[in-house]
Amino acid sequence: MPPLRIIPLGGLGEIGRNMMLIEYEEDIIVVDVGLMFPEEEMLGVDLVIPDFTYLRENAGRLRAVFLTHGHEDHVGALPYFLREFSAPIYSSRLTDGLIRVKLNEHRLLDKSETVVVEPGEVIKAGVFEVEFFPVAHSIPDACGLIIRTPLGPIVHTGDFKLDHTPVMNQSTDLIRLAQVGAEGCLLLLADSTYAEVEGYTPSEQLVGDALRNIVVNAPGRVIIATFASLISRVQQVVDAAVFAGRKVFVTGRSMIDNVAMARQLGYLNAPDGVIVGVEEMRNTPLNKLVVVTTGSQGEPTSALTRMANGNHRHIQIQEGDTVALSASPIPGNEQAVYRNVDNLFRLGADVLYNRVANIHVRGHASREELKILQGVLQPEYFVPIHGEYRHLVVHARLAEAVGVPEGNAFVLTDGDVLEIDEKEARLGDKVPASYVYVDGLGIGDVDQHLLRDRAHLSTDGVVVVIASVDKQTGKLERSPDILSRGFIDVEEHEELLERSKRVVEGALGGGEHRAELGDIEVRVRDALSKFLYDETRRRPMVLTVTVEV
Amino acid sequence: MPPLRIIPLGGLGEIGRNMMLIEYEEDIIVVDVGLMFPEEEMLGVDLVIPDFTYLRENAGRLRAVFLTHGHEDHVGALPYFLREFSAPIYSSRLTDGLIRVKLNEHRLLDKSETVVVEPGEVIKAGVFEVEFFPVAHSIPDACGLIIRTPLGPIVHTGDFKLDHTPVMNQSTDLIRLAQVGAEGCLLLLADSTYAEVEGYTPSEQLVGDALRNIVVNAPGRVIIATFASLISRVQQVVDAAVFAGRKVFVTGRSMIDNVAMARQLGYLNAPDGVIVGVEEMRNTPLNKLVVVTTGSQGEPTSALTRMANGNHRHIQIQEGDTVALSASPIPGNEQAVYRNVDNLFRLGADVLYNRVANIHVRGHASREELKILQGVLQPEYFVPIHGEYRHLVVHARLAEAVGVPEGNAFVLTDGDVLEIDEKEARLGDKVPASYVYVDGLGIGDVDQHLLRDRAHLSTDGVVVVIASVDKQTGKLERSPDILSRGFIDVEEHEELLERSKRVVEGALGGGEHRAELGDIEVRVRDALSKFLYDETRRRPMVLTVTVEV
Repeated sequence: MPPLRIIPLGGLGEIGRNMMLIEYEEDIIVVDVGLMFPEEEMLGVDLVIPDFTYLRENAGRLRAVFLTHGHEDHVGALPYFLREFSAPIYSSRLTDGLIRVKLNEHRLLDKSETVVVEPGEVIKAGVFEVEFFPVAHSIPDACGLIIRTPLGPIVHTGDFKLDHTPVMNQSTDLIRLAQVGAEGCLLLLADSTYAEVEGYTPSEQLVGDALRNIVVNAPGRVIIATFASLISRVQQVVDAAVFAGRKVFVTGRSMIDNVAMARQLGYLNAPDGVIVGVEEMRNTPLNKLVVVTTGSQGEPTSALTRMANGNHRHIQIQEGDTVALSASPIPGNEQAVYRNVDNLFRLGADVLYNRVANIHVRGHASREELKILQGVLQPEYFVPIHGEYRHLVVHARLAEAVGVPEGNAFVLTDGDVLEIDEKEARLGDKVPASYVYVDGLGIGDVDQHLLRDRAHLSTDGVVVVIASVDKQTGKLERSPDILSRGFIDVEEHEELLERSKRVVEGALGGGEHRAELGDIEVRVRDALSKFLYDETRRRPMVLTVTVEV
Repeated sequence: MPPLRIIPLGGLGEIGRNMMLIEYEEDIIVVDVGLMFPEEEMLGVDLVIPDFTYLRENAGRLRAVFLTHGHEDHVGALPYFLREFSAPIYSSRLTDGLIRVKLNEHRLLDKSETVVVEPGEVIKAGVFEVEFFPVAHSIPDACGLIIRTPLGPIVHTGDFKLDHTPVMNQSTDLIRLAQVGAEGCLLLLADSTYAEVEGYTPSEQLVGDALRNIVVNAPGRVIIATFASLISRVQQVVDAAVFAGRKVFVTGRSMIDNVAMARQLGYLNAPDGVIVGVEEMRNTPLNKLVVVTTGSQGEPTSALTRMANGNHRHIQIQEGDTVALSASPIPGNEQAVYRNVDNLFRLGADVLYNRVANIHVRGHASREELKILQGVLQPEYFVPIHGEYRHLVVHARLAEAVGVPEGNAFVLTDGDVLEIDEKEARLGDKVPASYVYVDGLGIGDVDQHLLRDRAHLSTDGVVVVIASVDKQTGKLERSPDILSRGFIDVEEHEELLERSKRVVEGALGGGEHRAELGDIEVRVRDALSKFLYDETRRRPMVLTVTVEV
């Protein structure tokens, strides 16, 4: 029997452009097509998508795409995927609603076949049969997948936690999982994001209680920032507002869009008249108002950041306001988040945030929950997914400690191929899985070389030298032009620029014979770089242009 | 009676270039002269120092400098300070040792007057009398100051925590503080770094026990990374190694220097033969070895980062190694720290770090400790120091909640002046307190304008256009030259460059009359920027140079 092949194309990283291929003979299915936000050193990059090279070479075998839930790191690269590939896209109702909005924006909706799947429903895709099961996570309608293969069932958890008192009644379906466990689970693929964290992730219910206390007790206006996709949290805020007799005003483009979509699909229930527009908001006393806003991650153009900077169109922060950040900073966003907190305090607001108030819980399972998952499934093989490399390692160890046979937990990195047959599992040859950078309209054309240049430019700026040389003799015709940006305050350093010109002249004057222009440019660049470093201890990028006159 | 003036020149921020002036009539004293490491958006900046403008204008009144402890954020700007100012510098023995090493490197030792002060000793400086008292912190010989003024005593805690079982027997001197409290404390200035954290900061003793367990039980080599200045932690490692019969090898330049200095001054005790050199390290079995290294913050050129990248000269990480990061990532360093953790795992090491092991405690007091401080001092006025703005706010609230009269806790920001007289305290006119950037040899010459240019360059690179125009007619003489860096892969986009040249020609061709060169350059720049944005959705910095031929 040929092997089953498991190929993660992304998923390393806290927000890791999740994408996985599962392959058996002539059939390939895809689980998730996510994007990743650029890390600090990916200068100027807008976003990062998975590497489709292997799939491109095997496009004829692609049978279907399954999406576990609607977060960007699981569905965000679909618009790029669908420019090249065509296959039915299966997901739950809310996920489908979210991706249809996105595909519409990219004018890809007509060309796409998206299909809504109910939990329990089974989809045939080539040799595979895929069943969706509900999981608790920080977005409604999140699902895991039971994927039946010729070698046995695979369980893919998507992002999940166990929440016995979830807001919208969606717990992780342990009964269904235990049935698969009873049957014999071949392979478990499970969320590792919180594999470092001891104990249990607290229930959403705690957050609901805390938010209600804030809304009831705040002396004035309450402003609550959270993720636009965290519809259940918005529901909790609406419930608290109703309880306290307050109106709700929604601001921030993605929050407005998602609230509208969620109300339309029935995922957000607000009594008539509770959610109000700008006019009514203006006529409501501050202590009868709750504002729900984007910006919990300190995004520069978000509504909360505009409030913190004092330039939101409708809301001026003032003494008496209570601002609650119902979110934790995603790693990398801390500076931006806390800058907002500081600025809101400066404007006189009382600010509640993760370090001083329990008004957020995360959507991922902690160690004790991961053990329960292992317990109900008792898989033969285990592959930790979603998380940084260290999360995968500690999750693999956890699995082996609670029953996965030693050697059967595989820590895969992007592009690894795990081949499972009836006898064993082993690593096959890797497939390409680079970071593919999207920058403006360019996809994949920003490479390490370009990023190194950007890093160099960012550190000490650029100096451009224009040397006009005689066509015949190669001699400098006049004093060279030098201009710079980001290097030094030119007006304060005129003398340095004058001496730089002498250095350029010196570098050019040396040769008696007509040298190649390329050689001249290198000579000038090296001499000037050295001079500028000696004088300033800075290393601007020096560009030399020789113009023949 | 004239007012006492309290002027923080720095101190906002987690690592905040701490510096404070205390002024009464003709006398000014300085507490700490620290530096700050640049934040993400301070591109290319090496470090940030306090703004000395006000002191420059009042240099004749400067009486003395007092340093609370030897960390960079409290003493790091001294070399810049001493280029301009001259005053005796008082500090404890280890702090003095550390700054003398630094001043020697900067060739400033001859010009400096540094004085070692013992706890309890009183220094007269103008109208002030300053007494050092010991505090527990993450470096030995840390002190707070009791500053007697004509209006009453001020207590400045420096960085501190309460640790009842410290490693080197240095607890915070609560008895001395209670005596000041009994006398009547005019003003308390207290460390706010941990003012968000409930409860108590655990004792260093816990870390000692945990490290000993690791060193005793690890199957092979143990590598422990920590701050080079955290001498007490190094002592704990040495103690654990002695207990387990292991040798200690020290690596990383600043760790080697600090260990040597600490041994010389008697702050680090190791039995003969325990600390070994490279040769003996090579001849020691791995399970009889402990390596102490720098790099706990993921610093790019540190010893631990070199190990994680597989290019340390003496130490190749292998299966069986245990690496312990005995430090928490300072905000902003998380990515670099966790990249090392991931890479060490990839090389086969077992890695223990803050999220999975209790092998670090921080050096700052948590909320319950801050309350005790308030309790023993019962100050009339309170100013929270050291920390981000939000830390100061929550610390001020804590103080008012436990007894500081309402309205007497002042949240100051850099450059604020708090004036205290016999009747009241109020804010006076601000003094200059900008960030002063050090970049290479330049001090203060990098401004927002330059940083904006660097940010622009870092995002989409630079495009340089050289247009050779006829001196008489202003007409383009030949096809323009265009070069770029960090914008786009030129070889893959030749066609775009060709079309860019047409755009430049178009922009130049329009004018019949001889236009000003400046106008031409603006016209070319605008046209090309627009064209490139339309084509690529990127906004490189476009520089235009017109050469007359």
